Amino acid sequence: MTIEELRKTREELREITGRIIELLAYRLEKAEKVGELKRELGLPNVDLETERELREYVSKKSAQYGLDDAFIQQIMTLIFNESIKRQDGKEPKNKIPRITHIDIFRKAKELEVSGREIVHLEVGEPNFGAPIKVADKLSEAAKKGYAFYGDAKGHVNLREAISEYLENRFGVSLSKDEILVTPGGRFAVYLAAAATLAPGDEALIIDPSWPAYKQITEFLQCRPVVIKTSLSTGWLPNIDELEKSTSRATKMLFINYPNNPTGVTISKELLKALVDFARRKKINVISDEVYMDYAFNGFTSILETNYDNAIMIMSFSKSYGMTGYRIGYLVAKKEIIDRAARIQSLLMTCVPEFIQIAAIEALADVETPRKYREEMKRRIDKVCQMLDEINAEYVKPTGGMYVFPRFRSLKMNSIELALKLLDKYGVSVAPGLSFGDYPDHIRISTGCELSKIITGMEKLREALNEQ
Amino acid sequence: MTIEELRKTREELREITGRIIELLAYRLEKAEKVGELKRELGLPNVDLETERELREYVSKKSAQYGLDDAFIQQIMTLIFNESIKRQDGKEPKNKIPRITHIDIFRKAKELEVSGREIVHLEVGEPNFGAPIKVADKLSEAAKKGYAFYGDAKGHVNLREAISEYLENRFGVSLSKDEILVTPGGRFAVYLAAAATLAPGDEALIIDPSWPAYKQITEFLQCRPVVIKTSLSTGWLPNIDELEKSTSRATKMLFINYPNNPTGVTISKELLKALVDFARRKKINVISDEVYMDYAFNGFTSILETNYDNAIMIMSFSKSYGMTGYRIGYLVAKKEIIDRAARIQSLLMTCVPEFIQIAAIEALADVETPRKYREEMKRRIDKVCQMLDEINAEYVKPTGGMYVFPRFRSLKMNSIELALKLLDKYGVSVAPGLSFGDYPDHIRISTGCELSKIITGMEKLREALNEQ
Repeated sequence: MTIEELRKTREELREITGRIIELLAYRLEKAEKVGELKRELGLPNVDLETERELREYVSKKSAQYGLDDAFIQQIMTLIFNESIKRQDGKEPKNKIPRITHIDIFRKAKELEVSGREIVHLEVGEPNFGAPIKVADKLSEAAKKGYAFYGDAKGHVNLREAISEYLENRFGVSLSKDEILVTPGGRFAVYLAAAATLAPGDEALIIDPSWPAYKQITEFLQCRPVVIKTSLSTGWLPNIDELEKSTSRATKMLFINYPNNPTGVTISKELLKALVDFARRKKINVISDEVYMDYAFNGFTSILETNYDNAIMIMSFSKSYGMTGYRIGYLVAKKEIIDRAARIQSLLMTCVPEFIQIAAIEALADVETPRKYREEMKRRIDKVCQMLDEINAEYVKPTGGMYVFPRFRSLKMNSIELALKLLDKYGVSVAPGLSFGDYPDHIRISTGCELSKIITGMEKLREALNEQ
Repeated sequence: MTIEELRKTREELREITGRIIELLAYRLEKAEKVGELKRELGLPNVDLETERELREYVSKKSAQYGLDDAFIQQIMTLIFNESIKRQDGKEPKNKIPRITHIDIFRKAKELEVSGREIVHLEVGEPNFGAPIKVADKLSEAAKKGYAFYGDAKGHVNLREAISEYLENRFGVSLSKDEILVTPGGRFAVYLAAAATLAPGDEALIIDPSWPAYKQITEFLQCRPVVIKTSLSTGWLPNIDELEKSTSRATKMLFINYPNNPTGVTISKELLKALVDFARRKKINVISDEVYMDYAFNGFTSILETNYDNAIMIMSFSKSYGMTGYRIGYLVAKKEIIDRAARIQSLLMTCVPEFIQIAAIEALADVETPRKYREEMKRRIDKVCQMLDEINAEYVKPTGGMYVFPRFRSLKMNSIELALKLLDKYGVSVAPGLSFGDYPDHIRISTGCELSKIITGMEKLREALNEQ
């Protein structure tokens, strides 16, 4: 009889599945209707508030039925995304092409290949290069045979050196199991997010921001929820606004000070307030601190707040001019590090050990970060002085390697300005729209040498005068 | 009136969503029932045939309703996975702990730290090391300042060198846009899969297999569908069985010859038959060819089949002993390479350029791969001879760096054998269960020097005699 019963139950299963499909189709139709109505009313397509309410509702409902909330939230994410896709299809196409600073960089490179001389004020890379001692150590390590597979978490000597370094600098005591060595800060951000977010989760991102936070969040099938800050309030985030943007799907807050692209840092008090907010909401915080050595008036790390769900991201790229070495690390509680290490092990086994040995050498070097910081400050001061001469509005950076001015009298948007600057004047800048909804800002990077920056700024002045 | 209409439509939306949840709960209940009945009948939990029929059914149904098939298949995958999870929860727990060769490796390392001498016959790493010329080139490049960000696709000189190399070797003409340089073969496999699979897709995997194929597939929320091969048919896959395991969700076939763990290679004819099958089914093929230089009787690359949806994976790890350099590449049509490069750019910007410059030096070296292959063959021959002396069954490898023998008279499973070998004899091997459902096989790696391999094999004989 059991076989007959199995056959019957399977048939029921098929029928129920069919009804689910019917309902999904019906639901998508209704969602399209909502989209049309919203367009008529001039409302935006994505409505987080409504989505959030709906997620709450299905959560309660699925608890009633004894369903796993994560499963249902994933289903909801697929449904929301499909609804948006269908609504977008009916939307009139955006007239402004979405050009990012990467596109500008690529165009600049093409112009260079064709023989034009270009001033690069768009790239996030210091021109400093690695200390000779570091390159020597790399060679030595490679020749000594540090060229086999290593620990996925990173060479124990490097992890111990990092732990000691952070203890000396921030007074925190960390075990080597709370540190994971990664191929660069970017991969550290990815691993931190991948180890803690599930599809359908939301992450709070404070704009303007480095585009990777949103891109990585979306890559993980999660949704970035943006909190805008503005020049008028010194680019500082407001806790009330964070509060308002939080839902039961919120699982992460990204922060990044000294900030890319604004160059602002935050006070110990504001950092504490951000962490208190995260603690209250029981969410993780990824604190991207890769510009810490370019902070001009001191720096507080999230490690100093002793928050259990803090994830600190650091890289050797800026502090020691080691961009091309691709090495960084993340610091978090062991549980998160273990999950991140499993992903790193799955995707790439380990970071080359000769690079890790070279990084130990870099960590011992206190002169280089100081020298690089002073040079960055000199460049930023010069850019600010030249911006003052053309009456641009900006918040004076207290760190980082960028200035993010606004041109109120601009007769074009910042993408058009960036393209004109590049085509006519051979100067490459990053348009504000790359970092959020900032159409009249541009990001000026101080990565290249001072004389070039001055030339670039002079040409910017010409372009603005001429418009 | 539109606002009122919006309110009303949203309410309907909520109600329909609620009904979908109810039906999902009902469906999972029924699936649990099916699970119980299957257990009573002694049938396996996952029933691909039924799943496939259901996928066909919902496909037709969703076409009727004008739904996107990919969306519905993704929903189905979530539902299938949740059903299996719930059925598994009720399953009596498996008594054998799932110990992999990584666990064995870790245990072996712990024993070493505690002072025991261990013979490593479990690791997939040759003991050869990189040629001195390569290490020299690495040093030179780092000192010359190849230490800045580079092209996400890889340094143009390396891509051109790879293209030339492949043309000379396989007679294929490739543009540099069909090549992507990656931090190792593992990341190349990940990128290839991530660029071509969507959540809910199925991938065909021929067992026994390197565990990463299944793990990466699952990491991407896709489903590995296993086709077993056996010692009695020389570990060769059967096209009919592949055919039977294919559903409308199938998007990928993984192949790997010379094979890890069996060491077999396949004929040009069988490779062609596999590609023809993929062509018929319109699916991508990832051909992991990292052991190509350890093929003892010649090698045919998938590149020679001119299949538009072939993705070839290669690494410098085995051919040049450069495991710790973490460098490899993938070859595919431009469209796939572009997608993979965007992911690589998002996750890690680029591969260190000094490593890429060193890899160009490696490519020019024809002596080293020949030398390494000859040494591997010598080691494999010795292992086979010693296996003959203890009457083990195995297929004699025609390539690679492993032998995968079966011990029919074993009074324990291969995990117990591996643990006993390690604890009592200080010999570390990988249990067959790491590579699929092969409880009476072990994988013997020939990565370490011959004298150690001989010691290890002698101890294996002792252990078997003693049981």
